[in-house]
Amino acid sequence: MRKNYLLTPGPTMIPPEVSLEMAKPIIHHRTPVYIELFKKVNVALKEVYRTKNDVFVMTSSGTGAMEAAVVNTLSAGDTVLVVKGGKFGERWGKIAEAYGVNVVYIDIEWGKAVNPNDIKKHLQENKAIKAVFTTLVETSTGARTDIQAVGNIVKDTDAILVVDAISGLGAEEFRTDDWHVDIAVTGSQKALMLPPGLAFISVSDKAWKMTEKSKLPKFYYSLKKARKSLEDGETPFTSAISLVIGLNKSLSMILEEGLDNVIKRHEKMGRAVREAAKAMGLELFAPDAPSNAVTPVKSPAGIDCGLFIKKLKSKYDVTIIGGQDHVKGKIFRIAHLGYMDVFDIVIVISAMEMVLVEMGYKLELGKGVGAAQKVLMA
Amino acid sequence: MRKNYLLTPGPTMIPPEVSLEMAKPIIHHRTPVYIELFKKVNVALKEVYRTKNDVFVMTSSGTGAMEAAVVNTLSAGDTVLVVKGGKFGERWGKIAEAYGVNVVYIDIEWGKAVNPNDIKKHLQENKAIKAVFTTLVETSTGARTDIQAVGNIVKDTDAILVVDAISGLGAEEFRTDDWHVDIAVTGSQKALMLPPGLAFISVSDKAWKMTEKSKLPKFYYSLKKARKSLEDGETPFTSAISLVIGLNKSLSMILEEGLDNVIKRHEKMGRAVREAAKAMGLELFAPDAPSNAVTPVKSPAGIDCGLFIKKLKSKYDVTIIGGQDHVKGKIFRIAHLGYMDVFDIVIVISAMEMVLVEMGYKLELGKGVGAAQKVLMA
Repeated sequence: MRKNYLLTPGPTMIPPEVSLEMAKPIIHHRTPVYIELFKKVNVALKEVYRTKNDVFVMTSSGTGAMEAAVVNTLSAGDTVLVVKGGKFGERWGKIAEAYGVNVVYIDIEWGKAVNPNDIKKHLQENKAIKAVFTTLVETSTGARTDIQAVGNIVKDTDAILVVDAISGLGAEEFRTDDWHVDIAVTGSQKALMLPPGLAFISVSDKAWKMTEKSKLPKFYYSLKKARKSLEDGETPFTSAISLVIGLNKSLSMILEEGLDNVIKRHEKMGRAVREAAKAMGLELFAPDAPSNAVTPVKSPAGIDCGLFIKKLKSKYDVTIIGGQDHVKGKIFRIAHLGYMDVFDIVIVISAMEMVLVEMGYKLELGKGVGAAQKVLMA
Repeated sequence: MRKNYLLTPGPTMIPPEVSLEMAKPIIHHRTPVYIELFKKVNVALKEVYRTKNDVFVMTSSGTGAMEAAVVNTLSAGDTVLVVKGGKFGERWGKIAEAYGVNVVYIDIEWGKAVNPNDIKKHLQENKAIKAVFTTLVETSTGARTDIQAVGNIVKDTDAILVVDAISGLGAEEFRTDDWHVDIAVTGSQKALMLPPGLAFISVSDKAWKMTEKSKLPKFYYSLKKARKSLEDGETPFTSAISLVIGLNKSLSMILEEGLDNVIKRHEKMGRAVREAAKAMGLELFAPDAPSNAVTPVKSPAGIDCGLFIKKLKSKYDVTIIGGQDHVKGKIFRIAHLGYMDVFDIVIVISAMEMVLVEMGYKLELGKGVGAAQKVLMA
């Protein structure tokens, strides 16, 4: 008998209440019962997004909703600004380029967040920029962007602000309307405590205006089709019904706990992991831009990072994840995201301690756990 | 206490074994356990497709995979032939047109199947046609196309044959390789006995050659990306993991029963529903091209079709569905698709009899059921 613990930045653990809801006999989507449920989901999504705008539910990975943001607002030959400080910032650029959009990059070191003034400078110097693409929490580096500051800059220009909030929404403070975010994209398998398969996209009035001029081809991703269907409480194409039914449950759980409390819980878990890491003599990878969602830690000298992750899994069934691309083998990432609380943090820190000691790393067992406890009990 | 029965052409009922499998704690997708499972799924998918080609798993509605077929093989300005005899044939045309592809339509009456010789004639007269888009079972009309005959025509040309097999694959005889089908698309929520959220697409060598010349923009739908990831047993973007885990179970169930037996079961259910309808004095909507997946029936004179469907649901919790577009209110459709057998047919026919009699339709109770039994017991 072994319990398994998943501390990865997507998928995240699913509450049993949600799994059981999804295991109920499936219902048809063009029926009053489902349409009623879908309307309820849409109201709750707006609360979690803190927006008055419509939030559309798409059946796809998060990347699909990112592509929808691009193809609905732009035309080939348009110029956009992309903040590239990790794998997912980079993805914005790749999607735009695949559609013949000119991309101006702000290259930042992995683990750092963009300086909002750099965005301001670009927008002032290049009036052709039609959209700014950035990331709330860059999953590959754990770095969090100050979207509020970016929003205050972009709002005074003709450009729209598009945010990949996939790993952040529901874990970080994020105020779509107050922060002037025109398009925010997220996915089901992060703070929303669901399996992957659904993506979400909010659209402001400013962004809708751009959709009128957009000439990029689209069909499945057409937000106009989505808006038309939503008037009847429907989606243009058959949704991942069971996931939407699970979403209804998970959003209820989030709103019952209170969104502010959910964010505080994530903030505390993130802080506990960072304090524990420091107490264990480990170095954080993104100390200047820590996030509530995922904490990347540098693999200490003399420890094989891949083996460390493997041992956590094989000996304790605790799953964390390594680095991607050029930081592969150099960092490991601990997610504190979604259906997690006090003892999930105690578990991951305690497992890390035991495996590190076994691998010859010098530390006093319980020291990291103690540092985490100090944060968690406050 | 009321049991519910879903006899719609997607979603279809989910076997409890599959639901329970999907309700297990979620696992991460970049792990050996999942990659092993995904490889097994890919082998099984090929068996169900009866193909040696790769079958790619996409996280999207079936329409997403249809769009993938278009954007990976064509360029703006190309000409294609689309068989349009219902809502889903029509969709091929709409997708192609959204991408600037010229569409030549073969318009056929709803409820009829295309005459393969009409396709031959178009291909002979218009050498510019690069692809023929058609539908195995047109869900909106229940009509089945003779794909084998179409394949034998298209194979001798430079055009590729692209088949929407969403409502048919796993219920109808369908031989991707033997019938020279270059691209076949299907979805999870039909004969594969899963919730919606996954789509599948097979690609022949002839179709791969077209992908080399295709200039339409794509990112999420890129089959080249999918092929590269599949070499490592992965997908380019986070899949709907829980649905893939369910798929592993449902494909095992199909292959354990034996694909031939599964198709025979569907054939028998379809025949039973048609015989029952006739015995009840009802008229079939697509008598010349019946399918194993769904049977459309004309609403009899004097019976309000919408009310009939509502009463089936409200009184007996039996869900069937009405017609779409111009046949709305004129036909109802009974699906016999996926996780269904003898008594699901007995149930739907018996419920129809009771509601029809209640609504004043003249029939002898049990007559339809008897006709169905006669087929089902053979």
